[in-house]
Amino acid sequence: MALIVQKYGGTSVGSVDRIKNVAAKVKKARAQGHDVIVVVSAMSGETNRLIELAKAINERPDPRELDVLVSTGEQVTIALLCMALLNEGLPAQSYTGAQVHILTDSAFTKARIMDIDGQRIRASLKEGKVVVVAGFQGVDSDGNITTLGRGGSDTTAVALAAALKADECQIYTDVDGVYTTDPRVVPEARRLKTITFEEMLEMASLGSKVLQIRSVEFAGKYNVPLRVLSSFEEGEGTLITFEDNQMEQVQISGIAFNRDEAKLTILGVPDQPGVAARILGAVGQANIEVDMIIQNVGRDNTTDFTFTVHRNDYSKALEILKATAEQLNAREVSGDNKIVKISLVGVGMRSHAGVAGTMFKALADEGINIRMISTSEIKISVVVDEKYLELGVRALHSAFNLAQE
Amino acid sequence: MALIVQKYGGTSVGSVDRIKNVAAKVKKARAQGHDVIVVVSAMSGETNRLIELAKAINERPDPRELDVLVSTGEQVTIALLCMALLNEGLPAQSYTGAQVHILTDSAFTKARIMDIDGQRIRASLKEGKVVVVAGFQGVDSDGNITTLGRGGSDTTAVALAAALKADECQIYTDVDGVYTTDPRVVPEARRLKTITFEEMLEMASLGSKVLQIRSVEFAGKYNVPLRVLSSFEEGEGTLITFEDNQMEQVQISGIAFNRDEAKLTILGVPDQPGVAARILGAVGQANIEVDMIIQNVGRDNTTDFTFTVHRNDYSKALEILKATAEQLNAREVSGDNKIVKISLVGVGMRSHAGVAGTMFKALADEGINIRMISTSEIKISVVVDEKYLELGVRALHSAFNLAQE
Repeated sequence: MALIVQKYGGTSVGSVDRIKNVAAKVKKARAQGHDVIVVVSAMSGETNRLIELAKAINERPDPRELDVLVSTGEQVTIALLCMALLNEGLPAQSYTGAQVHILTDSAFTKARIMDIDGQRIRASLKEGKVVVVAGFQGVDSDGNITTLGRGGSDTTAVALAAALKADECQIYTDVDGVYTTDPRVVPEARRLKTITFEEMLEMASLGSKVLQIRSVEFAGKYNVPLRVLSSFEEGEGTLITFEDNQMEQVQISGIAFNRDEAKLTILGVPDQPGVAARILGAVGQANIEVDMIIQNVGRDNTTDFTFTVHRNDYSKALEILKATAEQLNAREVSGDNKIVKISLVGVGMRSHAGVAGTMFKALADEGINIRMISTSEIKISVVVDEKYLELGVRALHSAFNLAQE
Repeated sequence: MALIVQKYGGTSVGSVDRIKNVAAKVKKARAQGHDVIVVVSAMSGETNRLIELAKAINERPDPRELDVLVSTGEQVTIALLCMALLNEGLPAQSYTGAQVHILTDSAFTKARIMDIDGQRIRASLKEGKVVVVAGFQGVDSDGNITTLGRGGSDTTAVALAAALKADECQIYTDVDGVYTTDPRVVPEARRLKTITFEEMLEMASLGSKVLQIRSVEFAGKYNVPLRVLSSFEEGEGTLITFEDNQMEQVQISGIAFNRDEAKLTILGVPDQPGVAARILGAVGQANIEVDMIIQNVGRDNTTDFTFTVHRNDYSKALEILKATAEQLNAREVSGDNKIVKISLVGVGMRSHAGVAGTMFKALADEGINIRMISTSEIKISVVVDEKYLELGVRALHSAFNLAQE
């Protein structure tokens, strides 16, 4: 008998029928002899409905009151799910974030969990009940209702699993696991049975939107085994593991990509201390996030500097860079907003030489020119022209045999 | 400077615009230098929407979870009203029932208030804030969310006024006060400036649905001055007072009536102890509430017995009465479900003789036959044929000069 935390997102509880479907899934886990804690989001559309009510009063509603308002969304779901569980003959009890003392700081609309008092939950489990907890919400030390920000229900589930030392935290979503790459681009993409936390973090930060990156960090920090599964299909999903557990190491786990990139270059900058800070400082002050950064030695004691930003920020960033270039006496500024980023992710590349070589050759064989390269311990990212995205991803998926287990 | 509790019902907060209107009303009270606590209901329609979600899962939803569900309705309103108050430049803070410790028993869906801890509210008032409290809800000693049953927001307002020793509890509704009778029946019906608690209780129990009877009892018990006003029009409304405050006593305050009545008679029952208990016991066991009860001496050591019930219970009650009549060897059973009850209410009738005489004469002058009479210290009720309802009420309104102040 294990203790399992299951989390169901807004789509999974989006209607009365889907809530009944969740109850049936919980019943199955109970029938296997497990204790179950369920964390739920608001029914899909509900949070937006509430936010629109608030915006009809004030475009920037008071954050404390906004949290009082939107936290009702999850409260509705916990009550309905408990009713559905009781219908299935399963004793069940709902708890709001405040009722189980999910203690957060007081940063309304984006609070962080500080502590969870598991006493009430443990008592209910002991009584043989399924415990249903409202995701996304907590309470600060003054008793004010707080919310964790969008997508925070994943974090609630992981935090509960950590606090109660659950054997597994299962995140139910509308995909059935983590894939070697997006199946819409590569039809033979394969669902991974396992992926390490580090790889999952890289995949998430690269735009693979299966899990909230914050909840993955949290699970990694507290050693909570995390599993991604589908609410609508049967299956084992993907287990996110700690590296040590892996018996055999594959070179590459997956290929992530990001379409929303743009790159900017400033050429012939006098190579002196503080130049990088001046260039990026000006961009940062405009609240533009910079992703990849590359600096090359140029000619005549100058340096060349390239970075990528979100495509939406391209024209603003270009304007700022031109101003900086003038101040710095740089030779030239250029940019390109028709580029994409493709990344290989795998903890295996640490111990396997030649991954980069295989990657660059596979792209060259297809005539794809690499515009930028950036590497980390478990990732290699390249920037290529937008038109090569699908071709590049498919070439790499095939070069690393990712369709085979 | 006074402390005022204002309560706004579902219609008064039924849309974003109406919530803004409430904020403007609160601002006016603040401008007069008063401290204000506002109690609100769910936006009209919201409680029904939530109950229908629950019923789509189970026709008889679990009471604890039903309270978790429907209590979100008021929580939405407190947040939206605070946003609107902040828009008006008024510092404001919302509280759920649990946050201000509105302690109730654990009778989910019909809980009773046991205690209120006014500390947090007092602290917020001291900071110059308008305090907005969710009506209709509380928390039991185990921290479970409870609700007070339909219309319970009035009770929340009165309980808060009592706990915080408010100078006045104002109930804002869609009528502008208590009238001498229903203006739809008597167009010249007059709004009363004051009415006593006892009269208000009689009016409410007789079907005049301005206030929840429970909140009137509560206000009377804790000496809370209560005022009924309109959310949509300006005006003083009606103040519900303690009798001693009245300088001059009028004979009659108002005329209440009830259309949903039916009467049943059992004739020729052997007149012996325990007969009334047997007749009414059988009716009570079927969960039928009995209103007026009259017993007359009959012929030959027998007695006649008549009582009224809600019209919906008529056929069921008649069936039960026929069975009882057989057991008791009674002579005859009869019934009539085309009757109504008209009642004169006024504390003045205690000290003014002749009220009954004036009443009976006024009805006789119109050819209205009285079928039953029942009196209490401040009320005379008569049962007449349904077709005479409007005529009877108008005749009495005019006979007692109720249109004149």
